[in-house]
Amino acid sequence: VILYELRDRGGRAFSPFCWRSRMALAHKGIRPQVRQVCFTEIAGIAPGTRTVPVLVDGDTMLRDSWDVAVHLDEVLPGVPALMPTEGDRRLARFVHHWTTHTLHPLIFRAIGAEIWDVLEPADQPYFRESRERRLRGMRLEDLRDGRHVVVTELQSALGPLEALLVEQEFLGGGQASYADYILFGALQWARVIGGAHLFIKPDGALDRWFAHCLDLHGGVGRQEAAGP
Amino acid sequence: VILYELRDRGGRAFSPFCWRSRMALAHKGIRPQVRQVCFTEIAGIAPGTRTVPVLVDGDTMLRDSWDVAVHLDEVLPGVPALMPTEGDRRLARFVHHWTTHTLHPLIFRAIGAEIWDVLEPADQPYFRESRERRLRGMRLEDLRDGRHVVVTELQSALGPLEALLVEQEFLGGGQASYADYILFGALQWARVIGGAHLFIKPDGALDRWFAHCLDLHGGVGRQEAAGP
Repeated sequence: VILYELRDRGGRAFSPFCWRSRMALAHKGIRPQVRQVCFTEIAGIAPGTRTVPVLVDGDTMLRDSWDVAVHLDEVLPGVPALMPTEGDRRLARFVHHWTTHTLHPLIFRAIGAEIWDVLEPADQPYFRESRERRLRGMRLEDLRDGRHVVVTELQSALGPLEALLVEQEFLGGGQASYADYILFGALQWARVIGGAHLFIKPDGALDRWFAHCLDLHGGVGRQEAAGP
Repeated sequence: VILYELRDRGGRAFSPFCWRSRMALAHKGIRPQVRQVCFTEIAGIAPGTRTVPVLVDGDTMLRDSWDVAVHLDEVLPGVPALMPTEGDRRLARFVHHWTTHTLHPLIFRAIGAEIWDVLEPADQPYFRESRERRLRGMRLEDLRDGRHVVVTELQSALGPLEALLVEQEFLGGGQASYADYILFGALQWARVIGGAHLFIKPDGALDRWFAHCLDLHGGVGRQEAAGP
């Protein structure tokens, strides 16, 4: 099994979507052969690849983190499921859309300038141009000025999770499920870039959950160095 | 089975939490004996009651909409489950916290002044005092000035659902589950008060889902008159 994932200039994995797949593979006990690429190398993985992660499993190539999770549950039904019931799959879809539409844009506004700082020089023009277009012409560096507002919005957006994780250990109940790895990817992205401490309330339920996730599967998450 | 629920001065049910239980009962094919109360009558239902819905089922009294849903699945396992799998229960808890912490406060800011308008005169002082305390001294009527901002925030917060409901008919997949009724309660609250059209994008996936939910179980939701 080969996993293509995004790296920064220091060789650290920081992409939230790649972390979803890394954790999904670790959940299944698979140690993939990791091939790191930078943004401007993604198109060279195979004809038609535009995003990572990309997973190659024998003759199968999967170009989307969701497809990777579904594939792993299909080919390895006997090991702990990522989505044990149909309801867990529905939960994961809800968490996917919420994380992607609500959480990711807020985290990007908190750490976007710092992401640019750690990218390979070859990636920096692409990243600036594509992300500043999304910001409607605002410069990445201008994001720093609004960070205190974004942090408040992030903590408010994470309020439901603070409440939920008081009641249960994981989104998956007593053990982590794919919904947990989706959320984990977002916070790990912020942690590796160096901004997770800005908005995760210390000693809260989310903080405890995140520490727990970092320790899962031999600490695969914690092994990635955090900070700028 | 007796269901105590909140009413406005015109006898309309508008509470989002009461609608969760109304729909849960309808899902099970139960037509409860409805006893409507206004805010200032809740304490008189039974010793210790502070919120509605309250459900009385024989010797059992349930004072919380979540407990009502769990109870119905326990005593009526043979009819369509509100939460068919453990994963659907986890989905419903996530949707509960997200709806209660994120969606409800935004909807309140969109329609809070209009709620006051339709309450029994006996309820109005209690409602104004308790809600203006939450608004840190802002008057209910001042909410109208910020409505255009809140509508934008609401549409942004509902973005994940617009995306999810393109993929699947209900949060519960092919059929409505309790997670759907939690979300329905919030939109029905806005609809009855007269503000749902402000933020539900016409002809979007959420609009179609809401229309579908209003028609469920003999149209129990649509039978409640909408508007001021």
